Amino acid sequence: MPATTSAPRARSWWGWGYVDAHPDDTECIALGALLPGTLARPLPVPRVADLPIGRPGATPPPSLAHLVTADPGVRAAHAMGKAYRDVARALRGRPGRIPDLVARPTGDQEAADLLDWAGGHGVAVIPFGGGSSVVGGVEYRGDAHHAVLSLDLTAMDRVLEIDAVSRSARIQAGALGPVLEDQLRPHGLTLRHFPQSFEFSTLGGWLATRAGGHYATVHTHIDDFVQSLNVVTPAGVSRSWRLPASGAGPSPDRLFLGSEGTLGVITEAWMRLRERPRFKASMSVAFTDFHRSLDAVRAIAQSDLAPANCRLLDPGEALLSGASRDGSAVLVLGFESATGPVDDRLATAVDLARAHGGRGETPAVDRGAPADAAVSAWRTAFLRMPYQRDGLARMGAVVETFETAATWDKIPALIGAVRAEVGAAALKATGYPATINCRLTHVYPDGAAPYFTVAVAGRPGDEVQLWDDIKAAANDVLHRHHATITHHHAVGRDHRPGYDIQRPEPFARALRAAKDTLDPHRILNPGALIG
Amino acid sequence: MPATTSAPRARSWWGWGYVDAHPDDTECIALGALLPGTLARPLPVPRVADLPIGRPGATPPPSLAHLVTADPGVRAAHAMGKAYRDVARALRGRPGRIPDLVARPTGDQEAADLLDWAGGHGVAVIPFGGGSSVVGGVEYRGDAHHAVLSLDLTAMDRVLEIDAVSRSARIQAGALGPVLEDQLRPHGLTLRHFPQSFEFSTLGGWLATRAGGHYATVHTHIDDFVQSLNVVTPAGVSRSWRLPASGAGPSPDRLFLGSEGTLGVITEAWMRLRERPRFKASMSVAFTDFHRSLDAVRAIAQSDLAPANCRLLDPGEALLSGASRDGSAVLVLGFESATGPVDDRLATAVDLARAHGGRGETPAVDRGAPADAAVSAWRTAFLRMPYQRDGLARMGAVVETFETAATWDKIPALIGAVRAEVGAAALKATGYPATINCRLTHVYPDGAAPYFTVAVAGRPGDEVQLWDDIKAAANDVLHRHHATITHHHAVGRDHRPGYDIQRPEPFARALRAAKDTLDPHRILNPGALIG
Repeated sequence: MPATTSAPRARSWWGWGYVDAHPDDTECIALGALLPGTLARPLPVPRVADLPIGRPGATPPPSLAHLVTADPGVRAAHAMGKAYRDVARALRGRPGRIPDLVARPTGDQEAADLLDWAGGHGVAVIPFGGGSSVVGGVEYRGDAHHAVLSLDLTAMDRVLEIDAVSRSARIQAGALGPVLEDQLRPHGLTLRHFPQSFEFSTLGGWLATRAGGHYATVHTHIDDFVQSLNVVTPAGVSRSWRLPASGAGPSPDRLFLGSEGTLGVITEAWMRLRERPRFKASMSVAFTDFHRSLDAVRAIAQSDLAPANCRLLDPGEALLSGASRDGSAVLVLGFESATGPVDDRLATAVDLARAHGGRGETPAVDRGAPADAAVSAWRTAFLRMPYQRDGLARMGAVVETFETAATWDKIPALIGAVRAEVGAAALKATGYPATINCRLTHVYPDGAAPYFTVAVAGRPGDEVQLWDDIKAAANDVLHRHHATITHHHAVGRDHRPGYDIQRPEPFARALRAAKDTLDPHRILNPGALIG
Repeated sequence: MPATTSAPRARSWWGWGYVDAHPDDTECIALGALLPGTLARPLPVPRVADLPIGRPGATPPPSLAHLVTADPGVRAAHAMGKAYRDVARALRGRPGRIPDLVARPTGDQEAADLLDWAGGHGVAVIPFGGGSSVVGGVEYRGDAHHAVLSLDLTAMDRVLEIDAVSRSARIQAGALGPVLEDQLRPHGLTLRHFPQSFEFSTLGGWLATRAGGHYATVHTHIDDFVQSLNVVTPAGVSRSWRLPASGAGPSPDRLFLGSEGTLGVITEAWMRLRERPRFKASMSVAFTDFHRSLDAVRAIAQSDLAPANCRLLDPGEALLSGASRDGSAVLVLGFESATGPVDDRLATAVDLARAHGGRGETPAVDRGAPADAAVSAWRTAFLRMPYQRDGLARMGAVVETFETAATWDKIPALIGAVRAEVGAAALKATGYPATINCRLTHVYPDGAAPYFTVAVAGRPGDEVQLWDDIKAAANDVLHRHHATITHHHAVGRDHRPGYDIQRPEPFARALRAAKDTLDPHRILNPGALIG
């Protein structure tokens, strides 16, 4: 199956996505004008040539040399993920530790050989997919290893096998979202996992971090689409059987899902696919009262309507994305099916929303036609957000997102506390009032996943520390409300303090024991998740 | 919340369920007449008084003595599960090792104290819920421990807390199905997990074995209904946070789900509930061609109709349950909802079945009214089956079920191979032709869970060995077809050979490391699952 053959667009080594999609200076200035206290002119775009990139601290054996590069540009692009604090560090010329080497294995044996070599030479190995981590998941911190190898999986990007009868495919873990969808499309099949990072993240990254995808209800995480995993560990390759379901002991796959490269390197997976949807209907519903909109969403989540999209934007978020201009909260509802029309389900959902004060218009039934204006505005803004974040970062702003999940009984107080306490922390840290917006990205019968955006002017040069102070306040609120440290961004290194509190201690001990067994030389992604 | 107060019906120590529901001698003889070669008269009902029950090999400390009994009847009832081979062993006076003691803790601290004492005295601990294991999950085999304690959780059977907003409840693990549903009913809520063993199995047992429940599609296993777990391990209590979802590392709960009492004792869980369904519709569809019926079920499983019931009975199974008398395969379809009418979904599913040769009648819409005759016959037969199995066992028959799951591409050949090879093995072992029936209990977009019933006359006294020979042939077929050793019956001790092959070796090593950490004295359910 051939990949797409168009010339690749240049990826940014320091910021989100494609270089040619970055806001230019004029757009940065316009963005900065939205936040009082930001710089008058954008910080310059950082250059690889200005980075202190030394000679690599390790040399691979000749048998592996062809897989490995020490090219400064490649190394710089593998030094960090794409969190705000990564971007800010790059802008201030203080990036994380640049890896000594970057390897691109093309198969399990090469990956295993690289792990063997690294294990024998005290070289840390950081598995690297699309590099879109926003939690410090793909960088090295500390000094316990004398060299760092970034293990880039993107040379393993093929759909190797398709079982049309069972609607599933064996896919290499290094395939970026569009790369795998391009290979599935000719078969009329789709994984339909669309995180915000879709273009810049890989199947393996989604699996290793339990990514949240397209579906706002039911199958929200990538976990549920996994039929089997192939994981290269220093202790051997773990190959689970392809099964639609099993009750044979604890799920082997569930140990590796979310293991964030600390137990092994996921190299391929059999994934459950679906037919491309032929029926779609979407609509937005506006609410004057945000708290009543929460009740509406809960009613829909506790029905069996199973919307594909059920994203609630608070007034600030709705304004920013253009979904509403009158201070309303907006619920974006979408249904899709390959089986039959979804108009009735949409209508029932809108009725539920109306019963809680929603102002829905007559459902705009959509079978391939453009969705209603608010829905469309939201989708466009959604994909543009990370670029705008980087534009604001160039204006000296502190701007980042964080997300969580909690049961419904805690949701209203949790959102209120985040606004109040994170707002207070931001004001204290920066001296400026922060914009704090909230949306619900995924909803469940028993709870929801709020996603927050914080934006505030920083003090030039101190942006990373300011954000760390604000984030510490956020983590504290989440902890006191027993809300998870992450619903789908993963733990990485940035979420370790919250994760270590949340994780039950006997489970932590079991996980460490598993780690010690599978990674006896402790080379795999040291400092992420555990250890 | 008070439990039901009606006088408890007597449970059988050696056979399924209630003593007063057991087939009497006349019914046993009638059942035996269906299988050529069975005995003329039933084997006598075994008596506790005839068992070789000695003095216990350990004495609990005074502080725990009030929780512990050495009563012979209680010990006998905790000696084994309720597999055919358990029943046959009891009927032949050769039961598994009788535990020395049975303890009934009333809370976490008492459970922890019992584990502490056992760990310090080399006493094996077998967690025991309803005792309905059909895989040797609750008995002790071997002689590495000088005494065996059966840890009966049924004194912990309360719904402790209900969060109506988040539709969830904190439930003690020892609650039998009806006991927990009785406590939820006044709140208009239900767990709606109805395995065949519903009356005789506990929440903790369901969780520890990843039980399959009511729903034939989507949320088939109890796993998906778990919000958080409380697990008493020898290394401390593991308490996960109540969360609707999380992406923070590998799921702690998923390590304990399916751990079968080897890592700790699940003592309570926050469970996701739902409203009781108000809309129901069910119907059966007959097929002349079993293979086309498989295609029909696959089409329905790959739609987004999500039937609650989608059980396909092969002609033999349909005949035995009274769902059909003309040699047809029968698909039992059921839809239910608390949100709105399900008639359209049923109609669409029946259309799909018709497109594959199904002979459905006009949908019999059912809002509380009796379901159609085939559906009703099936339900009644379903609950009666284990009693009839025991009646046949008393007639010297070898009769048991086993189940699996595989992707759709493998299903037709798998079912054919089981019929042929298990049939040949049964004939070879017993000299009689076996009845082998099949149904699909749960279906998925990517596969299905076939459930087989084998019945054949045995050789008096050799029944257990005959069954073990037949089961070995079954396990061999499953292995060659890469079908799981169990979809929802669990591994226990009987499935160890198949499980040990299926489980990826690196995962096995990680699991053993977790076990060594959490259960350093190796007292927890030795021989089940691992170790």
